[in-house]
Amino acid sequence: MHHFFVQSTDINDGIVVIKGDDVAHITRSLRLDLGDEISVSDGEGQKYLTELLEFGEYFVKAKVLEEFKVQAEPRVKVTLVQGLPKSKKMDMIVQKCTEIGVEEFIPIDTKRTVVNLNKKKAQKRQERWQKIVEEAAKQSKRGKIPKVKELSDLKQIIGKFDSYDLVLVPWEDEESQGLKETLGSNLEVERIMIIIGPEGGFSLEEIEQVKRAGAKSVTLGPRILRTETAGIATLSMVLYQLGDLG
Amino acid sequence: MHHFFVQSTDINDGIVVIKGDDVAHITRSLRLDLGDEISVSDGEGQKYLTELLEFGEYFVKAKVLEEFKVQAEPRVKVTLVQGLPKSKKMDMIVQKCTEIGVEEFIPIDTKRTVVNLNKKKAQKRQERWQKIVEEAAKQSKRGKIPKVKELSDLKQIIGKFDSYDLVLVPWEDEESQGLKETLGSNLEVERIMIIIGPEGGFSLEEIEQVKRAGAKSVTLGPRILRTETAGIATLSMVLYQLGDLG
Repeated sequence: MHHFFVQSTDINDGIVVIKGDDVAHITRSLRLDLGDEISVSDGEGQKYLTELLEFGEYFVKAKVLEEFKVQAEPRVKVTLVQGLPKSKKMDMIVQKCTEIGVEEFIPIDTKRTVVNLNKKKAQKRQERWQKIVEEAAKQSKRGKIPKVKELSDLKQIIGKFDSYDLVLVPWEDEESQGLKETLGSNLEVERIMIIIGPEGGFSLEEIEQVKRAGAKSVTLGPRILRTETAGIATLSMVLYQLGDLG
Repeated sequence: MHHFFVQSTDINDGIVVIKGDDVAHITRSLRLDLGDEISVSDGEGQKYLTELLEFGEYFVKAKVLEEFKVQAEPRVKVTLVQGLPKSKKMDMIVQKCTEIGVEEFIPIDTKRTVVNLNKKKAQKRQERWQKIVEEAAKQSKRGKIPKVKELSDLKQIIGKFDSYDLVLVPWEDEESQGLKETLGSNLEVERIMIIIGPEGGFSLEEIEQVKRAGAKSVTLGPRILRTETAGIATLSMVLYQLGDLG
């Protein structure tokens, strides 16, 4: 069954109004008919089984047949803070991590970030990543659309540490503390932040700065993962250990 | 320190002979000097600290200073059988899974595989994937270069089941058996095969065929992962639970 996202304000008295690009998608690309069933999420965890009721030029109306809470969201909410990588790697990171089950993304500028985005460019990228995330959320049948936040820096990120139960920073020079060990002694956490450095990694100074602020540096094992692999693999492991993955 | 792979037959009496593209890489791109140290693996788990001794036009000789067993290989050997995906997704899959710690890849043709490769093309692709794997093995400082096997079909794969302790086939219609549960009751396994369907998934018939032959179908959780995400995420979870990742 085809799945669409709407705003919760577009669902009233058992009628869902679908607008935007999805209208042409439903009526033209997919050639659905009145009476066909589609599923709809409000992007906040509520899902509806609906029946197509009316096709307008700029809208599609559907009737709610059944309403249920989406089970497709992990108990643990993970924010992925990603040092801005080169080329189109961020596109891949946001797509894959949305499927796997991330809650939100915050791209950051770090000492060794080589990509230089001015404010306008950064905003355009943010919009593009958000679009990729929406597509991936639809395709993986998530109940929620993860948010891509605006480009920040490490200081701003440290300012948010208080809202998290656990802040993890995978670091290739960490030798004693493994991710597994750390997760094993934090089984009750609900909000986790994962901070991944850009291609060149974090500087020692940056690592010390986040550790002083309460982040735990962890090793991911003996192999060196690229920046775009580190986030995907760490998220998989965190949601495997503490969430609903696997 | 820069890291290179050689054949074990190129290491004799404490002298390593480096040939091929790496010669220009060492002498021209990296501009290394005689006396500089590099690390060298024989691709079979042995690693050497060496000192550059002699530059020829087509070779570089290095003297072994120290020899050690590589610790960068997981105890569990995982073969990833991947339903041939569209476009360049396989490039990404082999690169990421090499970093994470796969042992070998077998691409397969399935009922819903849409890519059509004749024998010559399939061989060319295999060579290309093997090159990507070598690069990734170098970069992630693995002790071994995973092998990319030739394009096979499901029947050939089933013929190999006997060499594995556990064969996993993630399947979106599997509802009862989770990956976590399955790994939890197979903590002693050493050789694992993961079979991932192509974009359209496996047909019910194919699933039944591999299950009859002994494969365990498992769910990866409530979200639907793309084919290229499924292998990366499953490998991460398997090596987290049973190997040295995290």
